[in-house]
Amino acid sequence: ADTKKIAVIAGDGIGPEVVAEAIKVMKKTEELYGLSFEFEHGLFGGIAIDEKGTPLPQETLDMCKAADAVLLGAVGGPKWDNNPKELRPETGLLGIRKALGLFSNIRPAKIFDCLKDASTLKPEVLEGTDLIVVRELTGGIYFGDKFRREGANGEEAVDTCVYNVHEVERIVRQAFEIARTRRKKLASVDKANVLETSRLWREVVGRIAPEYPDVELEHVLVDNCAMQLLRRPASFDVIVTENMFGDILSDEAAMLTGSIGMLSSASLGEGAFGLYEPVHGSAPDIAGQGIANPIATILSVALMYRLTFGYHEAAQSIEDAVASVLDAGHRTADIATDRSKSVGTQQMGDLIVAAM
Amino acid sequence: ADTKKIAVIAGDGIGPEVVAEAIKVMKKTEELYGLSFEFEHGLFGGIAIDEKGTPLPQETLDMCKAADAVLLGAVGGPKWDNNPKELRPETGLLGIRKALGLFSNIRPAKIFDCLKDASTLKPEVLEGTDLIVVRELTGGIYFGDKFRREGANGEEAVDTCVYNVHEVERIVRQAFEIARTRRKKLASVDKANVLETSRLWREVVGRIAPEYPDVELEHVLVDNCAMQLLRRPASFDVIVTENMFGDILSDEAAMLTGSIGMLSSASLGEGAFGLYEPVHGSAPDIAGQGIANPIATILSVALMYRLTFGYHEAAQSIEDAVASVLDAGHRTADIATDRSKSVGTQQMGDLIVAAM
Ligand SMILES: CC(C)[C@H](C(=O)O)[C@@H](O)C(=O)O
Ligand SMILES: CC(C)[C@H](C(=O)O)[C@@H](O)C(=O)O
Repeated sequence: ADTKKIAVIAGDGIGPEVVAEAIKVMKKTEELYGLSFEFEHGLFGGIAIDEKGTPLPQETLDMCKAADAVLLGAVGGPKWDNNPKELRPETGLLGIRKALGLFSNIRPAKIFDCLKDASTLKPEVLEGTDLIVVRELTGGIYFGDKFRREGANGEEAVDTCVYNVHEVERIVRQAFEIARTRRKKLASVDKANVLETSRLWREVVGRIAPEYPDVELEHVLVDNCAMQLLRRPASFDVIVTENMFGDILSDEAAMLTGSIGMLSSASLGEGAFGLYEPVHGSAPDIAGQGIANPIATILSVALMYRLTFGYHEAAQSIEDAVASVLDAGHRTADIATDRSKSVGTQQMGDLIVAAM
Repeated sequence: ADTKKIAVIAGDGIGPEVVAEAIKVMKKTEELYGLSFEFEHGLFGGIAIDEKGTPLPQETLDMCKAADAVLLGAVGGPKWDNNPKELRPETGLLGIRKALGLFSNIRPAKIFDCLKDASTLKPEVLEGTDLIVVRELTGGIYFGDKFRREGANGEEAVDTCVYNVHEVERIVRQAFEIARTRRKKLASVDKANVLETSRLWREVVGRIAPEYPDVELEHVLVDNCAMQLLRRPASFDVIVTENMFGDILSDEAAMLTGSIGMLSSASLGEGAFGLYEPVHGSAPDIAGQGIANPIATILSVALMYRLTFGYHEAAQSIEDAVASVLDAGHRTADIATDRSKSVGTQQMGDLIVAAM
């Protein structure tokens, strides 16, 4: 295969540790499947603030734009939490999403059978849970005008939530397409009984739905969805929603599985390009100790292979290797029932590579 | 005691059925504790749309304004779901909150020991869960300007989220006061890493906190809160948050308990006046069958007695009666493990009255 350029932005906390294992896995697939990657590394997040004075340096952005895909570790930490807005890691995250046009965030939440006990939900409720949250990522209240002003009752703050038809169409269509490759069920989540943006959302969904007669559509109000995720998680297939609701619901869905150290995500735009990262954060409390769980990042590579490169065979071998290592009883500390028997980050990476 | 005026707006679906049982309980407390109530009934919601052409008729509003407290059943149903905005039950709900100045919604989520199994969460995780969500109810994106406009990329919809210092102060202060009467822990939930209204919110909380040195305060991001409610529900005491986040999180918290037919709520303004209603909806699918669970509405009466009237003894007797009826094994269909042995709405009301 021709050489694919991967922009690696390891970021902060455990980011560099988990990314290193993911790269190890990618190199193994070069060997096994004749793939070829060129890795370029860039600064991003807190470390970029410290070294370059900005969370998203121009050269990092240029590197990402020139790449075929981006592999991201994690960003942030208490060190930068009280910085002014321009000097915060999150600002880099929002900036890179916008600059790369990544309007869609895809978050699978699937139960690994052997980790079912890690969830706070009863195993019989979780049984068969396998859903994907498709979150709009570059619109809504995240990116609308925000400001302070003097109101009739003193100082007030304002955020603006805006969606246009085009923004809703492209994400909804993508969600329908994904549903079509799965169990053919789509839940569109909004708050159409209160919000104008949600009414627009629902209209657009209604307009597109006839193009996908094979997909069963339900409209779910966001408050109800927060409940139904707890009550009947297995009944969801694909959930599509706007940015802010997606932020909340995708984290709730992730926590359902009980093993957030296992969950991967993809952020996509038009075309095949994508940014791939674990759902978990930078976990500064355990950074540098070699105990972080690299599986979420490794599974993000599998997602990259499928969604950006179409390397399905190699993706499958990664996913199978992860499953077999878990089945053999190996666990990092976060998912171990007996911590004393847990394996470290590198050892987990090695085990997965060996199982491929 | 002097006679208190209760405005009763039974509403739609199962509303009238559950409200009837709550009134039965109130009458019993008149006997037992020498209380005195005068009940006035008004149309509200779907039934008001059908009979008066508006979800919140002026005479209903006037009746509520003249009352000492409002008892609300439930509103809404598929019949009115596709109506234009002014003719929808929710519009009445938002209208009554605003017109009565009910800026605070209080939602206790407590586990009844004998109903622990109804939850989809593991009993050991739920153990000790007893939290209150304090939701801001008359501000934020619910009440800001909403409109359509032609943008650069075609039609767009806009919602505006606005908070002023005063609105945040009063709800936050109320939450601190409630925390002080309980386990003295307050979680303030926002999205300060993205929203300007959340940054204002967090500033105000920080400014008020020193007045409550006995209350332990944590700031939690909304996405993280959606996760932590699942992971460590028992660690929360009082959660305070803005309108939209509160809508989502209070429903998530309610579902944690697994028995939404048991949960009461209060909406308060300045002073003692309040509107009390069950958390559950109008359940049109079971309306008129005499099988709805009246306990949430009955417990809303207990909440009214405590928060509006200071009738603590009578409130306690209601709460104790509910507990003893449950302990004796009586269940309505929604919380029964064996539906064939369940009791109906009226029978449940009678059992509670008898146990008082
Ligand atoms: C860090 C924050 C800005 C970000 C978001 O809200 O989008 C994060 O929560 C996420 O979900 O990736
Ligand atoms: C019906 C709807 C407008 C309402 C809300 O969102 O406030 C409801 O969900 C609630 O929580 O009382």
